[in-house]
Amino acid sequence: MSRLAEAATSLAEAGRRMDARGWVPGSAGNLSARIDDETIAITRSGVHKGRLVNADIIEVALDGTAREQGQKPSAETLLHCQLYRLFAPVGAVLHGHSVAATVLSMAGPISFTDYEIIKAFGFATHEVSIDLPVYENDQDIARLAKLIEPDLLAEPPIGYVIRGHGVYTWGSSVEHAYWRLEALEFLLQCELERRRIK
Amino acid sequence: MSRLAEAATSLAEAGRRMDARGWVPGSAGNLSARIDDETIAITRSGVHKGRLVNADIIEVALDGTAREQGQKPSAETLLHCQLYRLFAPVGAVLHGHSVAATVLSMAGPISFTDYEIIKAFGFATHEVSIDLPVYENDQDIARLAKLIEPDLLAEPPIGYVIRGHGVYTWGSSVEHAYWRLEALEFLLQCELERRRIK
Amino acid sequence: MSRLAEAATSLAEAGRRMDARGWVPGSAGNLSARIDDETIAITRSGVHKGRLVNADIIEVALDGTAREQGQKPSAETLLHCQLYRLFAPVGAVLHGHSVAATVLSMAGPISFTDYEIIKAFGFATHEVSIDLPVYENDQDIARLAKLIEPDLLAEPPIGYVIRGHGVYTWGSSVEHAYWRLEALEFLLQCELERRRIK
Amino acid sequence: MSRLAEAATSLAEAGRRMDARGWVPGSAGNLSARIDDETIAITRSGVHKGRLVNADIIEVALDGTAREQGQKPSAETLLHCQLYRLFAPVGAVLHGHSVAATVLSMAGPISFTDYEIIKAFGFATHEVSIDLPVYENDQDIARLAKLIEPDLLAEPPIGYVIRGHGVYTWGSSVEHAYWRLEALEFLLQCELERRRIK
Repeated sequence: MSRLAEAATSLAEAGRRMDARGWVPGSAGNLSARIDDETIAITRSGVHKGRLVNADIIEVALDGTAREQGQKPSAETLLHCQLYRLFAPVGAVLHGHSVAATVLSMAGPISFTDYEIIKAFGFATHEVSIDLPVYENDQDIARLAKLIEPDLLAEPPIGYVIRGHGVYTWGSSVEHAYWRLEALEFLLQCELERRRIK
Repeated sequence: MSRLAEAATSLAEAGRRMDARGWVPGSAGNLSARIDDETIAITRSGVHKGRLVNADIIEVALDGTAREQGQKPSAETLLHCQLYRLFAPVGAVLHGHSVAATVLSMAGPISFTDYEIIKAFGFATHEVSIDLPVYENDQDIARLAKLIEPDLLAEPPIGYVIRGHGVYTWGSSVEHAYWRLEALEFLLQCELERRRIK
Repeated sequence: MSRLAEAATSLAEAGRRMDARGWVPGSAGNLSARIDDETIAITRSGVHKGRLVNADIIEVALDGTAREQGQKPSAETLLHCQLYRLFAPVGAVLHGHSVAATVLSMAGPISFTDYEIIKAFGFATHEVSIDLPVYENDQDIARLAKLIEPDLLAEPPIGYVIRGHGVYTWGSSVEHAYWRLEALEFLLQCELERRRIK
Repeated sequence: MSRLAEAATSLAEAGRRMDARGWVPGSAGNLSARIDDETIAITRSGVHKGRLVNADIIEVALDGTAREQGQKPSAETLLHCQLYRLFAPVGAVLHGHSVAATVLSMAGPISFTDYEIIKAFGFATHEVSIDLPVYENDQDIARLAKLIEPDLLAEPPIGYVIRGHGVYTWGSSVEHAYWRLEALEFLLQCELERRRIK
């Protein structure tokens, strides 16, 4: 099986799991995986990420342009490419829309304090307070990527949220990126619940 | 496969997905698809929309009358027919009952501001504030349809809610109508959550 | 297939659907169906209702005693038998434990006003206000049944809740009892959400 | 089938059920079962508990050391071993992370009063008020186990929670441990909801 086909299989599986959790409503969300030093596989624009077939995953260069003419990669492709360009260990990037991420990002800053699950991001202890960066939404993705880049270089975060939009997480493989997405969404759901009870 | 059978297959699939989300409790909800200029396929009255079989989908004229004598189309058939009559691109109409739609519609007006997901309805940017029309429930469906019609003609909405009842959404196909339903229910769930946290 | 085996198949299916919604945690809940004028099929005590096999469904007389010696019917069998005894049309009774039913019953009286879904219980319009009776929990089931009986005879309710415990619903068949259970749980979830937003 | 393989099959099944409820995000959670007087089967560290295969379950002695060299048992193995050592009837131990357990444990003491479901833990009546012990999280698991031991010996609880982390429950078999986990998570969800409505 070609590396593109392998990536397509993994991404379709991740998409199904995200769909089961309600994280890819309609044609929202996008998923990608690294194929080699210069190429990534990413979901096409305008397809339901919970029901991906091989034809829905296309090859894209690190500058965001599709390998095959006429194919339309995800609108947010540059946000994926940025992560592969900056961080050699990144093997996959997942972007979903959850109610928790959307609502919390509209309510103010987000941070996680004393949660055991934070160890999913490499911390040795729960006794930390970690901020989740929140960026203003922007239809100009190139401009948004420029805004995010210094922060990524200064201190790689556990992921980030685009206000009123959704989260970006990444990992060494599609499977590991999905684990980190699950952990991040779990933390967001805890924060949402925590703010409701007095 | 006849166009009726094709429609039945798509509608049964959409019904299963709606059921998995809890949007068709009991025999609530109704789903339809356009067959040709004068005919639609719609779910019968009194069946569980999450477990549809071909016999549960019947042909109905645009005036709401069943093609075959003795068949009982959905009670809300005229609300479906209205959309096919007014908007040529409409290929499918979905009506479900969600807790979020029911509760929010009973609490007052509903609008969505700065949500990325609003782009699912054709907007180019998230920087919009879109109202979701709320209509008083009415057992006289013909009268309800008359009330709704001027609004539909003046400015086609992203969908609408009947107070204490549920949403109506539509799209160019059953699949696209389902994507818009998922997006609308996502927005409603966000609004519900947003109003709970201070 | 014998009537017992038929009932077992339907009840196992209903149990799986209730389990998917989280309504039969552990070995909680019980499900039954009428076999003939003097016999019902009911789930045994101490089994997970989401994973029923034929051997988990036993025959019981309308007085609550098991047909086969040594079999242990559900602890709440008399509450089922009461409904079959009083109401000839009842073909199935379902009892589940939902978070909404448990929490609301502990918070005070419960009623549903202007909900479209109330029509699932035979009302012609949504413009009604229907009380859901709440009874104090009691480990003496015979005593509890005696307390409930006059109310059932005076005005058959849409179902009832035992405080801190769960709902009882019924219908002409297992399928129709399940539809009414779904509708009732939907109403309870709406009430729970309604009381949270201001 | 060897006892290890049998245990692996049961644990994988329990893991899938926990995953369906969102209780094992990422590589969180751990599951074990008793094999004989001196050996338990426990999930390896760093695997997704919702997708366990036989190779993910390893044999460990009651002192926490892996039988096979090089295998890495769960970080929290000593908490499992403690329960098998102290309580002969314990056949399985399940640890998951739920939003309810995490959030409530961070909000203060937890107790359950007048819930019917408490009978899942052996009580004869709902008319009890049962505390769920909450322990401060600690990356030094041996130290945490030492802190918990006197309480376990003084009065075996229905389970316990580690603050900001998750619950530990146990039972005579994997199936019965899962039933108790479902019941405990149901109670926690009720408490979470109860504190939100006034």
